[in-house]
Amino acid sequence: MQFVISAPDDSLRAALQAKIDGKTKPLGALGRLEGLALQLGLIQQTLSPELRKPHILVCAGDHGAAKAGISAYPQDVTWQMVENFLAGGAAINVLARQGGIELVVADAGVAHDFGPRDKLVDAKVSLRGTASYLEGPAMSAEQCGTAMARGAQIVAELHARGCNVVGFGEMGIGNTASASLITHFLAGIPLEDCVGRGTGLDDAGVSRKLTLLQQAAALYGGDPAPLSVLSRFGGFEIAMLAGGMLAAAERKMLLLIDGFIVTSALLVAATLHPTTLQYCVFSHRSQERGHRLQLEHLGARPLLDMDLRLGEGTGAALAWPLVRAAAAFLNEMASFESAGVSEQSPAPLPQPLPREGGGELLAPLCGGNIDAAR
Amino acid sequence: MQFVISAPDDSLRAALQAKIDGKTKPLGALGRLEGLALQLGLIQQTLSPELRKPHILVCAGDHGAAKAGISAYPQDVTWQMVENFLAGGAAINVLARQGGIELVVADAGVAHDFGPRDKLVDAKVSLRGTASYLEGPAMSAEQCGTAMARGAQIVAELHARGCNVVGFGEMGIGNTASASLITHFLAGIPLEDCVGRGTGLDDAGVSRKLTLLQQAAALYGGDPAPLSVLSRFGGFEIAMLAGGMLAAAERKMLLLIDGFIVTSALLVAATLHPTTLQYCVFSHRSQERGHRLQLEHLGARPLLDMDLRLGEGTGAALAWPLVRAAAAFLNEMASFESAGVSEQSPAPLPQPLPREGGGELLAPLCGGNIDAAR
Repeated sequence: MQFVISAPDDSLRAALQAKIDGKTKPLGALGRLEGLALQLGLIQQTLSPELRKPHILVCAGDHGAAKAGISAYPQDVTWQMVENFLAGGAAINVLARQGGIELVVADAGVAHDFGPRDKLVDAKVSLRGTASYLEGPAMSAEQCGTAMARGAQIVAELHARGCNVVGFGEMGIGNTASASLITHFLAGIPLEDCVGRGTGLDDAGVSRKLTLLQQAAALYGGDPAPLSVLSRFGGFEIAMLAGGMLAAAERKMLLLIDGFIVTSALLVAATLHPTTLQYCVFSHRSQERGHRLQLEHLGARPLLDMDLRLGEGTGAALAWPLVRAAAAFLNEMASFESAGVSEQSPAPLPQPLPREGGGELLAPLCGGNIDAAR
Repeated sequence: MQFVISAPDDSLRAALQAKIDGKTKPLGALGRLEGLALQLGLIQQTLSPELRKPHILVCAGDHGAAKAGISAYPQDVTWQMVENFLAGGAAINVLARQGGIELVVADAGVAHDFGPRDKLVDAKVSLRGTASYLEGPAMSAEQCGTAMARGAQIVAELHARGCNVVGFGEMGIGNTASASLITHFLAGIPLEDCVGRGTGLDDAGVSRKLTLLQQAAALYGGDPAPLSVLSRFGGFEIAMLAGGMLAAAERKMLLLIDGFIVTSALLVAATLHPTTLQYCVFSHRSQERGHRLQLEHLGARPLLDMDLRLGEGTGAALAWPLVRAAAAFLNEMASFESAGVSEQSPAPLPQPLPREGGGELLAPLCGGNIDAAR
């Protein structure tokens, strides 16, 4: 599959910075929102970026290795949680609703028959999830290509419908293990630093998980090509996410990157096409220990640090209001000039009049409140 | 002025924690949102807290000491920015609109005659701003009491109108200097660590500011009583915020604390009534250097760290969606039991059926999207 991903043209940078600096605030006082606004303007090649029809794409898949005991939860939780997504009861449903984000749930390869379901995108690559990388490749090269192509197709369809910002999330019991192996091989981080508690392993569980993953890594040998690593260690949902990210960057959409597993998919995408990173907003730093190292490897500073370790795209959904705020201040704030606010030179003070006392302070509140936005 | 501020009853804690732990997510996986949800439930004494009619109260005032050159901006910027608030063009207007927060702007003592204005709460304590603490007290004890009482009255009126969450913001050229002195005396932090760039002083400006504030501190002598410190160093907007905070905690409202200046008002309130802190959410860590030290002094970990240094309540507005998210997950997420998701024991896997290929992946997207919240 070929993606053509070009860097944003940088020629608008000075004009964007001048617009940001002209807003009624001290230079730089909106901190990281200012950098976000600049990024949005460059991506969209405009001084007035618009964020349209935000979506979060949650890809779900099962992992053959999950049966070996690398997770605190049984594999069935993958399909049960997909059902929870479809019923609207999971964390990502709640947070997406809060943020006005539409959710798209795609079955990349869950080991369960959901039957035909209106709200589920059937992008299943295999009926049984991946094979176990403890014995051989998790998927074939063809399956990997299929998963990536379907992820790309979903994002292309979202784009065709007017969406220009997409967050990525995942569900798959065992997928922190996959992400650990991918991170180890693509970012060169020692495996023991990439292995964490996942959904809640105790110390003995983490130790067992590390031993199994060390066996899997040794069995592989270590071809560092990103698609080889991805095919070997899966999962289908990670491949689908990587394809979706590349399609999004190709279309100059904004990508909201979630936690450890989503970032492992980004490692695949960005190793293939480093320019992808210029379209990414890193939404949060997960408590899963490998995520911090991934972010350092990518030179990324995430927006939030809320000790989340849930996945599903929850970090992306929580960071979304900050992204909206960046576009909003750029588009809606007054400039020093338009508001008549002094930048440097003092003006003479008018003489104040005495205040007449008594009564309710908030008398004008009901009828004349400022910015009654609700 | 007397405030009666009792700690939230702790007896609901176990039931709240059980509700949080029963949600369809690994234990603790929503990180800091879980602690927020617990705090909300305890404050409101319910398993289903509701956040009603959120407001941000922005208090504005002028500082006599500003004329001595402790700010990068002329004093007129205070009233000009109040006009900007009234016109809806400032950062806090934009961010409050984004978050569905109503804004209340109160004139605590701006050295300007605004005339009668529908959208401005006239709570002016003085027509000329504070006196300069470089020469004597910024305000009299009576003025200090008046400012605090008016802040308390505004918050009481908001509460009477059904509001149970209030953020605090401020505007006042020179007020980082006031905040530095208050922080020095109430938190015992060396003055040189409390003095920062404010709205954008260069190194020479910071050095001059520190010298002036050292003179002001020496002239004072150092009575550590919070109301003495507050009266001595002002400003009216800080006193008004402190009164508003005490009234909010007394009414068991949730307080959203902004940056350096707002936290200096909280130091006054919390020195008088430490229980106030239990009603506070610390929204962000400002780039103003003293703010980090204030937060450490209070043992507070803020939600955001976005390098903001704008004031106006902008950090509180940006953190608000996180607070809403905490209430939403507690109220709206499914439990393991209600969603039929396994916690421990695996269930047998149903046999998946083959997928029929071809066509658009997102065919159901238009009509059957999940959680189309817009």
